[in-house]
Amino acid sequence: MPTLCKPAVSVPEHVITMEDTLELARTLHPDHPQLPLALRLIGNTGVAKRHLVQPIEETLKHPGFESRNAMYETEAKARVPRVVTEALGNAELRPEDIDMIVYVSCTGFMMPSLTAWLINTMGFPGHTRQLPIAQLGCAAGGAAINRAHDFCEAYPDANVLIVACEFCSLCYQPTDLGVGSLLSNGLFGDAVAASVVRGKGGTGISLERNGSHLVPDTTGWIAYSVRSTGFHFLLDKRVPTTMEPLAPALRTMAAQHGWDAGELDFYIIHAGGPRILDDLSRFLEVPPEAFRFSRATLTEYGNIASAVVLDAIRRLFDEGGTADGARGIVAGFGPGITAEMCLGRWASELSEAALTTERQVLGSALRGTAAGHGTDAPTETVL
Amino acid sequence: MPTLCKPAVSVPEHVITMEDTLELARTLHPDHPQLPLALRLIGNTGVAKRHLVQPIEETLKHPGFESRNAMYETEAKARVPRVVTEALGNAELRPEDIDMIVYVSCTGFMMPSLTAWLINTMGFPGHTRQLPIAQLGCAAGGAAINRAHDFCEAYPDANVLIVACEFCSLCYQPTDLGVGSLLSNGLFGDAVAASVVRGKGGTGISLERNGSHLVPDTTGWIAYSVRSTGFHFLLDKRVPTTMEPLAPALRTMAAQHGWDAGELDFYIIHAGGPRILDDLSRFLEVPPEAFRFSRATLTEYGNIASAVVLDAIRRLFDEGGTADGARGIVAGFGPGITAEMCLGRWASELSEAALTTERQVLGSALRGTAAGHGTDAPTETVL
Repeated sequence: MPTLCKPAVSVPEHVITMEDTLELARTLHPDHPQLPLALRLIGNTGVAKRHLVQPIEETLKHPGFESRNAMYETEAKARVPRVVTEALGNAELRPEDIDMIVYVSCTGFMMPSLTAWLINTMGFPGHTRQLPIAQLGCAAGGAAINRAHDFCEAYPDANVLIVACEFCSLCYQPTDLGVGSLLSNGLFGDAVAASVVRGKGGTGISLERNGSHLVPDTTGWIAYSVRSTGFHFLLDKRVPTTMEPLAPALRTMAAQHGWDAGELDFYIIHAGGPRILDDLSRFLEVPPEAFRFSRATLTEYGNIASAVVLDAIRRLFDEGGTADGARGIVAGFGPGITAEMCLGRWASELSEAALTTERQVLGSALRGTAAGHGTDAPTETVL
Repeated sequence: MPTLCKPAVSVPEHVITMEDTLELARTLHPDHPQLPLALRLIGNTGVAKRHLVQPIEETLKHPGFESRNAMYETEAKARVPRVVTEALGNAELRPEDIDMIVYVSCTGFMMPSLTAWLINTMGFPGHTRQLPIAQLGCAAGGAAINRAHDFCEAYPDANVLIVACEFCSLCYQPTDLGVGSLLSNGLFGDAVAASVVRGKGGTGISLERNGSHLVPDTTGWIAYSVRSTGFHFLLDKRVPTTMEPLAPALRTMAAQHGWDAGELDFYIIHAGGPRILDDLSRFLEVPPEAFRFSRATLTEYGNIASAVVLDAIRRLFDEGGTADGARGIVAGFGPGITAEMCLGRWASELSEAALTTERQVLGSALRGTAAGHGTDAPTETVL
């Protein structure tokens, strides 16, 4: 069973607090007719601080799309290798063990993708498949896990490296003055994350089923306007209402698997904003505490786009993981509006190894041989 | 076994001939010091004509990145549905039978991707997986086939729709005056294509193995420079030499499958340019005629980026296909420099059905029952 191993996450060194953000909004837009609303919305995000690749003074400048995109490339090359190395270490694998790299990022554009550079510079084999995804936005973290899962279903001995690289601050557009833009300016943060899906072995979330859901006729609700100044992020005020149609999609997928989406042991949910987490916990009838990993990501880093789900999973690991066999869901939400969801169980290598040994022992017992210890145990006990 | 069904291909109505192209180069760049070289290179492409989404007078104007990208979206929405409908018809499937849409395109950028619009407007189910790939350039046609193949390996009852949408003329940059740019201006064309990979059933290329290969340290050889004026295509003069390292990659993958890459029955090769086709046929020691499908694409449409391999496969179908069991290779080449390759056999629905019947008959015979006809046939004959 493919297992999502412990993610590595890194946030840049430049920090902006909620107080800084509110003060900036007041300073930059003193005469904005909807400033009070924008301040209230930003205050409600609960984002205590965010991390940026540049000091805030530089972030506020727009040196042009070319310069911004060049900076994206420089920062990605400076920051991604470290999380890749750490994620490989977490999975106890080497670069030569990787069969595919899924690289998700919507805040810069490179062709060739960073995948080619990673293969050239970090010792991945020349036959490593490259799957760069730029157009699924915040849902891409879930999509990356799901496509890695699919690949390991197809090739059970394969291992897939996932990388999420999001420098949302490089998409700051000073001329965008709608309330949605002011809110976004106070919500999004920068981060890079990586994780390995091991086809066999490993400790983490053993992936069992994945699914996707598109909310009909909402393509304009979260979107990029592509202009000479780069990507302009459009956020419709109806977005926070989307948990009403998405909660049933989560319930349906869980039911197809024989699970109740309201009765799971852990929840990794895209922390798009506080309303998304509040509404979804209400619609699924789970206590807010169940979303603590996502909420911590939002509070400490802001909405870090496709990296949210990997960071929230990292926090589950940091809590010591959970009981073997515990059931959970991972759900990324993004433009489309699209949900990329998966179901899995916590599995530790120890328990897998123990299970394998028990199966071998049982196999020996059933074959009537006397290899190894414990062959006298009754079948009930072994199982 | 997943089968790539007959692609549908559509080229726009505006045509530019080789003579038009040469005349334009002379008119636009009369004093260019390397004009004679550029004219010679364009002449050598063998591209008799190309199809463009706008008349050439409009193509030569650059109305800005925003306008260009808006036109990309408009043209995509106007032209993609028809090939999708035709591809579904070719595969004898309906939209509700599709489990994933792989959309490849490097000549415009939309978020959400066109996949969301297709699902909303063409009746695909809300749970259809979306896999948009923008950063693999010309190799993306091969990558789309390979990721569709993987998905059907993971879920054998699944069907995957592939769409390639390339409006290369919308990336024309009048200020790019290097010889590589002048050559590109005479080489690339516009096209949209679609095909379905059926998990089960269907007539076409039954996909058996796929692989990827990155040529080390060539990331700058084919690349986009991302600027306020959009994507600027960079083509290094060393690109035509890349068949020397790529031919062994094709040979290696074929050998892993027990096949000889020089002894296959059909070849679908990315028609990046004439030198690529000439060199590869030489390195693989196959007659130039073996690459006739790709060469026809290049001659009639130019290099249509990720759509090349789908158009070349369409030409194989138009020739009446080939013998059941005939072995072939599909190879897309693009930035990285990356090759996305697959091996498959020609399979017709009839032969698959016959094979299934024979297997059932054989199964009955082996089980010693007397169901159906032909149970008396000796095993050798049935097999």
